[in-house]
Amino acid sequence: MDRTGSGRVRRVDAQANRGRILDIAEEVFGRGGESASTEEVARLAGVGIATVFRHFPTKALLLQAVLVRRFDRLRERAEAMLGAEHPGTAFFDFFRDVVADAATKIAISEALLDAGGDSDGEATRAAAGLRRAVGALLQRAQEAGAVRADVALPEVYALLVALSHAAAGKHTAAGAKALTVVFDGLKPQGAV
Amino acid sequence: MDRTGSGRVRRVDAQANRGRILDIAEEVFGRGGESASTEEVARLAGVGIATVFRHFPTKALLLQAVLVRRFDRLRERAEAMLGAEHPGTAFFDFFRDVVADAATKIAISEALLDAGGDSDGEATRAAAGLRRAVGALLQRAQEAGAVRADVALPEVYALLVALSHAAAGKHTAAGAKALTVVFDGLKPQGAV
Repeated sequence: MDRTGSGRVRRVDAQANRGRILDIAEEVFGRGGESASTEEVARLAGVGIATVFRHFPTKALLLQAVLVRRFDRLRERAEAMLGAEHPGTAFFDFFRDVVADAATKIAISEALLDAGGDSDGEATRAAAGLRRAVGALLQRAQEAGAVRADVALPEVYALLVALSHAAAGKHTAAGAKALTVVFDGLKPQGAV
Repeated sequence: MDRTGSGRVRRVDAQANRGRILDIAEEVFGRGGESASTEEVARLAGVGIATVFRHFPTKALLLQAVLVRRFDRLRERAEAMLGAEHPGTAFFDFFRDVVADAATKIAISEALLDAGGDSDGEATRAAAGLRRAVGALLQRAQEAGAVRADVALPEVYALLVALSHAAAGKHTAAGAKALTVVFDGLKPQGAV
């Protein structure tokens, strides 16, 4: 047997396992609750607990990897929308998307804090990258006149986080309507 | 010695102690952090731990009493504003007040959940009373044309809770600006 080829197969397998563990972990920890454990992740991913620990030596590292992947994906989506023809639509659509999938992201963020935090770690850096991308989307939307000029990233991000927290609750209909209120508030206001 | 009189003095003392313990508990648990304990409350209130436990047999009951008092006070303030000359100003001022003092309220709510919860307890009932009072303020503000007619209490309350959570964070300036955005979104919108 070709040793190099077999090594490559093992690396590909390991990579596939890693991705599968992250997918399952995102679902399990996103759901939250008592049964959200590394053991449950291993069971649903169909791998041994040792395999999970080989990739992610601690629960905090596993949660961190899940969060980093989510933040990176959102950032990439935001960056892809920077070239959109209608910057206002791009900004509001992206805001809505982030809030819509926030429920799980927030559960995972809080699980990470419980598991020993990520102060100044990978997830923090990934979150900062996402924040910068949102800032770029906001700036383009403001230049296009679709978002009022007198708001800046800190308050827009505060609203994004606040509505994401609200979305993690139960009242989806209220959340959608709350989003409408905030979007109207973000649009250029009348001659007042 | 007059036994009735002495009994009355003891009752007055006990009442004063109870109020003092609640004041200190609100401060200590509102601040949060590691040192937030019943022992710390007793020490700062200048009473023995036994006195605290006589009034509040568990930490959950103490936290519950603090929350009930805060919700009741806010509800009374809301009810007092129902007769205001300018219902729009009353509504927006009250919204701003609730968000402004939310930082401590939320820390206490979360401490209560950690300490064993209040599902369907006194704090839940007091919170429902506050919600009803906010609903009445909203209705008056809508009747006066100061708040758009197409929003209802669920989304207004979702925004109130979301912004209160945001206020419990660090970025006060961003919070104030976020409030402006939400208030503009709540006002009757142009002929769109």
